[in-house]
Amino acid sequence: MNFGFVCRSCGQRQSFRPGPSTCSCGGTLLVEYDLERAGRTLTKESLKHRVSSMWRYRELLPVQHEDHIISLGEGWSPLIRMHQAERLLPVGKLWVKREEQNPTGSFKSRGFSAALSIARAHGIKKVAVNSNGNAASALAAYAAYAGMEAYVFVPRDCPGLIVEECVQYGAHTCLVDGFIHDAGKIISDGQQVQGWYNVGTLKEPGRAEGKKTMGLELAEQLNWKLPDVIIYPTGGGSGVIGMWNAFQQLKQLGFINGDLPRMVSVQEAGCQPLVDSMAGSGEFKPQVKHVISSPTGMRVPNPPDGHLILSILQESGGTAVAVTREEIQQAGAAYGRLGISASPEGAATLAGLTRLLDQSWIRPDDEVVLFNTSHAVKYLPWKPASSLPVVKTYQDWLQAVK
Amino acid sequence: MNFGFVCRSCGQRQSFRPGPSTCSCGGTLLVEYDLERAGRTLTKESLKHRVSSMWRYRELLPVQHEDHIISLGEGWSPLIRMHQAERLLPVGKLWVKREEQNPTGSFKSRGFSAALSIARAHGIKKVAVNSNGNAASALAAYAAYAGMEAYVFVPRDCPGLIVEECVQYGAHTCLVDGFIHDAGKIISDGQQVQGWYNVGTLKEPGRAEGKKTMGLELAEQLNWKLPDVIIYPTGGGSGVIGMWNAFQQLKQLGFINGDLPRMVSVQEAGCQPLVDSMAGSGEFKPQVKHVISSPTGMRVPNPPDGHLILSILQESGGTAVAVTREEIQQAGAAYGRLGISASPEGAATLAGLTRLLDQSWIRPDDEVVLFNTSHAVKYLPWKPASSLPVVKTYQDWLQAVK
Repeated sequence: MNFGFVCRSCGQRQSFRPGPSTCSCGGTLLVEYDLERAGRTLTKESLKHRVSSMWRYRELLPVQHEDHIISLGEGWSPLIRMHQAERLLPVGKLWVKREEQNPTGSFKSRGFSAALSIARAHGIKKVAVNSNGNAASALAAYAAYAGMEAYVFVPRDCPGLIVEECVQYGAHTCLVDGFIHDAGKIISDGQQVQGWYNVGTLKEPGRAEGKKTMGLELAEQLNWKLPDVIIYPTGGGSGVIGMWNAFQQLKQLGFINGDLPRMVSVQEAGCQPLVDSMAGSGEFKPQVKHVISSPTGMRVPNPPDGHLILSILQESGGTAVAVTREEIQQAGAAYGRLGISASPEGAATLAGLTRLLDQSWIRPDDEVVLFNTSHAVKYLPWKPASSLPVVKTYQDWLQAVK
Repeated sequence: MNFGFVCRSCGQRQSFRPGPSTCSCGGTLLVEYDLERAGRTLTKESLKHRVSSMWRYRELLPVQHEDHIISLGEGWSPLIRMHQAERLLPVGKLWVKREEQNPTGSFKSRGFSAALSIARAHGIKKVAVNSNGNAASALAAYAAYAGMEAYVFVPRDCPGLIVEECVQYGAHTCLVDGFIHDAGKIISDGQQVQGWYNVGTLKEPGRAEGKKTMGLELAEQLNWKLPDVIIYPTGGGSGVIGMWNAFQQLKQLGFINGDLPRMVSVQEAGCQPLVDSMAGSGEFKPQVKHVISSPTGMRVPNPPDGHLILSILQESGGTAVAVTREEIQQAGAAYGRLGISASPEGAATLAGLTRLLDQSWIRPDDEVVLFNTSHAVKYLPWKPASSLPVVKTYQDWLQAVK
């Protein structure tokens, strides 16, 4: 095999397998590739002839046989230059990576294409995820396409249209009276008995690897010259982890050189563990105080590997910034007027840009890339017609589905 | 210039210009290219190195200077093989062209990218469209990105989420108490005084040319071997016209040969002028009887050039098929279970396939392509919060905006 695990804490190497990507020492296991071997077929020239999906980087994804790939046309999303915004803002170049053009209308498609391809390769048939919404609908779609059974657990205040998507894709959909980690607890409590393969954030290797392709694409689309700053809405953070990983691999492959981008995580004020940790001791601490932010993908008070995210922000010379609900709304409206339908998470990156320009943290000649992770319309208030169970615990769920 | 007009009725040639693409004889003006010249740079090999948008076919689009192109990342949408469905249905190969992955969540992005690029090339600043929804939101987005002012007129029962998109993109949005042609009347009554550039179906050359790229892509994605059958949801029909045009041009360029696909138009029962005309005299007649179908893109009782659509269906050995609202709903649910979020129009193509399989019109070894033109969620019932004017006539509109 061209790939295996390496623990980012203790450095131990292990052979690749599906399931928990946590080392016995507690560290996160990252997928490591034989880059010398990968580089024999993966070249800048060879990429010009490849599929227009994230699977163009096959040598850097942990799926061995083409037959196992579950693809609905994810990735290779457009990178659009924002000429009008450049005239309004003191920034060198401004780009938007349009992740809302993925098959399920969000960047989450990437992770599940990879995760379920790995699952298929290992004969897995039943998958479960906890999510703030878009990960649930993406899992639902990919599982449907792959003929797997999907169980999704989302906070009860999760956007109704996204919940409806899960229902339409035929997933067993359950609302949770709590946050994303409460939903995760239900899965971990039930997974052994129920036979669920847990595809929650960093619970298996595929999702971060799939998200990694955002970084690979960015480099290729900018002709192997990365931008100065990447602004990314951060919840569980597998996008930050994945992209940073991508850049390391591209460096080792000799595809890029020089400084890497300053990575910026944007969070909504009221759920900002990264922002607080960055401003505090510089050590990651989950948010213990009451969460008061909106139900979006950024609302993750205790990300599975906050330490890793924070260390990436620090190593890159980046930062974390909190923006208010009102700033997000204003940025969403501004985005619309520029022709882009931006989800609250996507709009938060524009709000973050404005903040960082005000602070002169971003310089007038910086090249900046924003990630628009989903469509605005998916977040409009809507109530699913079907009556869905609302539960607090795994025992509740057992009762509800009896 | 590499392109000009030719009248499809009288054959007269004219130089290219924006605005009404109707000949003095009443025929539709088609854009004609110097294909010998185009073929010098547009080759199968050169395409392998081009942008992943519809602008990869620049020589076959009527925009001369690259600077005029208004692109939000439209086209080059995935073509997905439906393996699961193939096991359930007696069909050779089944593909879905995922037009919902366009920047505005629908196939309409293509037409407006082309139409507004032409408009920009000619200094136009104010654009208007009548639409059943997705064309309106696409115009709104592209106009916003291009810094033009957009006026959109849609039937008052048009899907609320799509209306909301128009509002978010900053378009002057007006609901019309009537059908799409009533909305069109308002624009034609007002366009001279208001200075609107009318980008309604077949009112200018760009939209059909933009849609043409669906046909070009299909050929390229299937390695220059077209499928046996294309099933397309038909309202105004510029997609059928555009694709057929694409195939002729590809033939002349020597990129394809042999039989062209049988073109199938699907309409919803209750608004089925093509189906009735096909079953009747074979001459196109607009629907005069009461329209009772749902407010989707297929609800066009009197398409601007129904004769041309019908002649294409006939020439290709194709057909037109009406499916009921219930069949569309069932097909939409089935699509969801296969992992695809299909709009009613997209679902109608799957319903049409089922009908044509029942009739043995489609043969067990046929290779079939369905077009999913938009996302399912955009059609869920929703009421825009903002109070929008509702009008019947141009005079009403003048009053309403005073």
